Amino acid sequence: MFGSIHATMFETISIWGVFFIALLGLGYAFLLKTQIMKHDKGTPRMQEVWGAIRQGADAYLGRQLKSILPLILALTAVLFFSVYVIPPSEEALSRFSQFAPDKVRLLVGLGRAAAFVMGAFFSLIVGQFGMRMAVEGNVRVASASRRSFGEALKIAYRTGTITGMLTDGLGLLGGTTIFIIFGIASPDVLLGFGFGGTLLALFMRVGGGIFTKAADVGADLVGKVEKNIPEDDPRNAAVIADLVGDNVGDCAGMAADIFESYEVTIVSGLILGLALVGLTGEIKWILFPLLVRGIGVLSSIIGTYLVRGGKEGKNNDAFASINRGFFASAGISMVAFLFLAHFYMHEWRAFFSVGVGILLAIVIDEITKYFTHTQHPPVKEIAHSSRTGSATLILRGLAIGFESSAWQFIVIAITILAAIVIYWGQPVVYVLYGVAMTGIGMLTLTGNNVAMDSFGPIADNANGIGEMAQLEPKARQIMADLDAVGNTTKAITKGVAIGSAVIAAVSLFGSFLTDVTKVQAQMNIPENLRLLATGIRVSQPIVFIGLLIGAALPCLFSSLTINSVARAAGLIVDEVRRQFHIPGLMEGRVKPDYKKAVDICTVAAQKELIGLALIAILSPILIGMVLEVEALGGFLAGVIISGQLLAVFMATAGGAWDNAKKTIEDGLLGGKGSDAHRASVVGDTVGDPLKDTAGPALNPMIKVINLVSLLAAPILIHLHRANVGVIFGMVACILLIFGAILYSKHGALTFRRPGERVGF
Amino acid sequence: MFGSIHATMFETISIWGVFFIALLGLGYAFLLKTQIMKHDKGTPRMQEVWGAIRQGADAYLGRQLKSILPLILALTAVLFFSVYVIPPSEEALSRFSQFAPDKVRLLVGLGRAAAFVMGAFFSLIVGQFGMRMAVEGNVRVASASRRSFGEALKIAYRTGTITGMLTDGLGLLGGTTIFIIFGIASPDVLLGFGFGGTLLALFMRVGGGIFTKAADVGADLVGKVEKNIPEDDPRNAAVIADLVGDNVGDCAGMAADIFESYEVTIVSGLILGLALVGLTGEIKWILFPLLVRGIGVLSSIIGTYLVRGGKEGKNNDAFASINRGFFASAGISMVAFLFLAHFYMHEWRAFFSVGVGILLAIVIDEITKYFTHTQHPPVKEIAHSSRTGSATLILRGLAIGFESSAWQFIVIAITILAAIVIYWGQPVVYVLYGVAMTGIGMLTLTGNNVAMDSFGPIADNANGIGEMAQLEPKARQIMADLDAVGNTTKAITKGVAIGSAVIAAVSLFGSFLTDVTKVQAQMNIPENLRLLATGIRVSQPIVFIGLLIGAALPCLFSSLTINSVARAAGLIVDEVRRQFHIPGLMEGRVKPDYKKAVDICTVAAQKELIGLALIAILSPILIGMVLEVEALGGFLAGVIISGQLLAVFMATAGGAWDNAKKTIEDGLLGGKGSDAHRASVVGDTVGDPLKDTAGPALNPMIKVINLVSLLAAPILIHLHRANVGVIFGMVACILLIFGAILYSKHGALTFRRPGERVGF
Repeated sequence: MFGSIHATMFETISIWGVFFIALLGLGYAFLLKTQIMKHDKGTPRMQEVWGAIRQGADAYLGRQLKSILPLILALTAVLFFSVYVIPPSEEALSRFSQFAPDKVRLLVGLGRAAAFVMGAFFSLIVGQFGMRMAVEGNVRVASASRRSFGEALKIAYRTGTITGMLTDGLGLLGGTTIFIIFGIASPDVLLGFGFGGTLLALFMRVGGGIFTKAADVGADLVGKVEKNIPEDDPRNAAVIADLVGDNVGDCAGMAADIFESYEVTIVSGLILGLALVGLTGEIKWILFPLLVRGIGVLSSIIGTYLVRGGKEGKNNDAFASINRGFFASAGISMVAFLFLAHFYMHEWRAFFSVGVGILLAIVIDEITKYFTHTQHPPVKEIAHSSRTGSATLILRGLAIGFESSAWQFIVIAITILAAIVIYWGQPVVYVLYGVAMTGIGMLTLTGNNVAMDSFGPIADNANGIGEMAQLEPKARQIMADLDAVGNTTKAITKGVAIGSAVIAAVSLFGSFLTDVTKVQAQMNIPENLRLLATGIRVSQPIVFIGLLIGAALPCLFSSLTINSVARAAGLIVDEVRRQFHIPGLMEGRVKPDYKKAVDICTVAAQKELIGLALIAILSPILIGMVLEVEALGGFLAGVIISGQLLAVFMATAGGAWDNAKKTIEDGLLGGKGSDAHRASVVGDTVGDPLKDTAGPALNPMIKVINLVSLLAAPILIHLHRANVGVIFGMVACILLIFGAILYSKHGALTFRRPGERVGF
Repeated sequence: MFGSIHATMFETISIWGVFFIALLGLGYAFLLKTQIMKHDKGTPRMQEVWGAIRQGADAYLGRQLKSILPLILALTAVLFFSVYVIPPSEEALSRFSQFAPDKVRLLVGLGRAAAFVMGAFFSLIVGQFGMRMAVEGNVRVASASRRSFGEALKIAYRTGTITGMLTDGLGLLGGTTIFIIFGIASPDVLLGFGFGGTLLALFMRVGGGIFTKAADVGADLVGKVEKNIPEDDPRNAAVIADLVGDNVGDCAGMAADIFESYEVTIVSGLILGLALVGLTGEIKWILFPLLVRGIGVLSSIIGTYLVRGGKEGKNNDAFASINRGFFASAGISMVAFLFLAHFYMHEWRAFFSVGVGILLAIVIDEITKYFTHTQHPPVKEIAHSSRTGSATLILRGLAIGFESSAWQFIVIAITILAAIVIYWGQPVVYVLYGVAMTGIGMLTLTGNNVAMDSFGPIADNANGIGEMAQLEPKARQIMADLDAVGNTTKAITKGVAIGSAVIAAVSLFGSFLTDVTKVQAQMNIPENLRLLATGIRVSQPIVFIGLLIGAALPCLFSSLTINSVARAAGLIVDEVRRQFHIPGLMEGRVKPDYKKAVDICTVAAQKELIGLALIAILSPILIGMVLEVEALGGFLAGVIISGQLLAVFMATAGGAWDNAKKTIEDGLLGGKGSDAHRASVVGDTVGDPLKDTAGPALNPMIKVINLVSLLAAPILIHLHRANVGVIFGMVACILLIFGAILYSKHGALTFRRPGERVGF
């Protein structure tokens, strides 16, 4: 059924089995939703706050959708017509041998465009629906915390699990569906699916990140620093925007981010698996990742269902319970993988690769903990350095950020080394497949991971609602406890998100090699000149140029996102200051206009979206046209290296400053209100946009660039054959010069618009 | 006379001509010294301050020499014996065909060891002698400023020129001497010369950087921030240490840094030139870079001599005069290069490559100015963002640092593209040669550049002496004006230092290719398996691992150096605070113990030196042993990419914060004492160790790693042939695991010693 490759009855059944497991995961999410919705929404005051949050979140999502829709539509058309530039692959012709080549071309084009829309749509659902559920959950957690700790914990975690199971279920459903329809011809179509998902994730990450930090930083700068009123104080005009931000950034953004890592690892796993199918004639190399993922979904369902807290539970119980669920899932998976390796694969190497992935998730988790948790030396050092003021605190955080980048590089290097050792003596394609399987393994328990992550903003929001609705102290204490647990689980997932993004990017980089080689083979380019034979040689000056430009891109990206937050936060500061001057507001007699602040954030978050997305989409195409396909490979390597460096640096430094502040708030060096605390607030404010906007935006950005390169490579090779590249190259150069002039005049490239107020 | 290659009489004469030009440059430096020393040293109070600075600087240099001497001796031995692992090259046998192979081996070994010592010694002279002269100049500038602006300017600039001419003269002398003795066998020996220079530069940069910023940050944190007394106030115990720091960091460190870029570009130029000699049989490819350098020295002598200021001159006059000197040198050089290209080379490509280098220096200069000067948008934005406090100011600075990194990458990429275009259609070696010539061109006017740079700390110190000796207002104004000019000239050189480091590293990367290929040819490895044929393929997983680990190293390095400054500054803060409690000190009746602060900085600066040097020396050897020589190439690429990213980021962010503070001090947003000013002081304090310690330390570090790789490569290839690599690899892995355990227990790797006070 999958084309020219033979599949046994067992294999056919099991692929349908995976399909139904994906549906089961979605069904489980639906079941949890019904359960959650039954709980009560508390007092009218609580519902009022909740209503404001929901409205703000909906407004943001609606607006975002509207601004990206034209681009999505245009790209759908581009993807559809792209098949008319190059002929359909041999695999496609073999899979649909009953049709004429023209029909096949149409079919692949339709499939690719549909897959792109599906990827984007699924990503949207994960983000939007997950976030809507989080908003629904918030108020119910707040209400339940008036009754018992256990109930509040259960609602918070299960609401998070809905997003988790959506991520799992939709990712698997998409990959499996495409595989069932297109069989060995799937890679072409799968790329569209991956691209749709990552692109949406980029939007959600960048938009959500700018929104949440503009609101957060803006609210804090006026509220906490200038007016000395507590966080979530209802008199602060930006407080609702801040709560909305938690949902759109931490919840929707993170879920979409992990969804696309989940999706992209399937895509690259299947592409590299197909390369092995070509070498060995065995279909098991493609089925393996799908089966592993199927097992992962099943064990996530069981593990997450086990999480519950006792009636009078404490933090530790909550944490232990969540961990228990995680390890239950991990245990079930490992046993099932063993069976799979022994009885189906009849070999152990793929199993080991998946195992390395699970191990990698744990190691990255430990490193993240070491560098960002309060009980370890780095955060203690940062906290202590606040004694000589904020400058030294910042310096320490920068040093720790750089150090963690170094270690993360080494961990990824060891992971690839493991793939080499596991596939010792085999051709490179096996090693690349091993790396892809590591990515598959790393994200096996995505259901649990996303549940843990979403738990964070849900508990945070419940706490905010509690503060604003002035609930009784006992309930507030429970919510504060849950919030603390949420901060920890959230931080853990962040490390996994970066790590998996890098591994996914490396797998895509591997797929780039095999894919380009396939196209070159189809074009009868001699074997020794194909990319898998020549390799991507940074010793070629032109490839080194690619490497340099690739390294430049994440720097530019980070600069733009940090600046966007800075600019938007400045607008919020002005607005909140203005509203504080309204007579009666400080006394609590007049309610501030929350909607205004939400609007400012929403508009600000949209402003840079299209520009940043275009940079990510167009830069690999330009590089490929001007410098050819090998240099494009160097470009990808540069993007990965510099992207990882900056992503880890920003996430770690930001997280460490955040926790250094918490350590001081817990009583170190004089606690709240001391000079040390003031210094640590500066560190936290610097770290916020780094760890929640600029850093996370790099994850999808790295993958968008890799996917665009994969999609564009065949066309680029054809263009260069026809010597059209030089012409396009010159056009590109002119564009570049034009851009440079614009930049020097108006600073357009950095979005410094003439006359616009710069700074805060 | 140069071995088997024929040289015309003109060529033989001209090489001796270059040799004498080098001596002429040194003679000019000596002449200037005699002139300077004739000027008077002013009042007894001035001489007292000057004596304290001189003592402190001498103490630091003596101590530093003592701590690095064992390593230098050990490495000299290693370099000597290295020739006994691999046979002497064919070129060496041909050059010394009158001797038996055994004798030739001894000769090359001795030559290499001697060249290493010479490189180290020259670097030491440039740093130490230059610094001593700066100290002598300081007090004389202060004294002259009591008479006239013009005289003060002339003394300051000429003192700087002494260092400049030493850099030029010694760099050229070393390269030419080796070439005259070893002819076409020079590359082996030249590597020793380059290694000696870069290693010493690493020590001077790291040691000097830690010293100067520990003193600066420590003095400011207590003096300016806590006690609210002005900079250079004699009651501050760290004030002499601060002035000493300017000399050891900005003067000795920077001079040694540029000296080694100067040296390393000659080394890689000659190595790649020799590869072309091998291809074409024409000796002109090696003579060209030496002749270009000779012309550069001559025109620097003329240009620097033209600099002088009018009696009642102003800032602009000073700046215009320095610029006039620079452009005179540039003009003379270009005309001479034209003659060289037309009458000697009979081709224009090499000329264009050198021209690109000069252009590159100008472009980098402009970019540096754009991002760090007060009149351009970036610094203005940073300054304005201080209105919402230090956090937003820091964020803006980070964003601007990242942005400048992106642009610098693109500039370097365009430079390499230029080399490709210039040598279009030629083999890769030509393009690499072109890049090396760009490096040669970029550093043509090193004499002027270093003079401009050294001018900065000399004017700064004179100003400090003026403050401490309480000179009359008119003299103080002149010195303040000179100081402002010095800040500008210093900043310009910083950009050139980074840019030239990257270009030098890329040239070395190119030399790595040709050198390894030569060794492989000598070992009869088939041509298609040699490195120049296979290339360095990042698509090979093992090479990608090298790339990742290479990228990790600059991160680790930056983290360690920032932490060292933080720790040392903490000790200074304690000491200055302690001394402020001595009765009578604040009233000026008791003199503080300046020596104590100098001692603390001196000891702190030595602590990390050996550890950091060992990381830079051992890491490429370990990588080469475990992962083989192609992965080592990937490693080098990783080091260059991540090193450049961080170096530019830190230099720019630091410089921009510094100038944002100056803008505010000049009256923006309330000027000195305002909230905005306090915020900008935080930014400046964060930026100081980044721009003056961590960032600059990366320049020599990148080159040390490249040179060690070049030196070790032949041995590594032999080891791998003999399968010894695996054994060594295992030893290395054990070391690594051991290191990891140590790290987790005591944090040894980050130099966190148990029980030691962390933080400030």
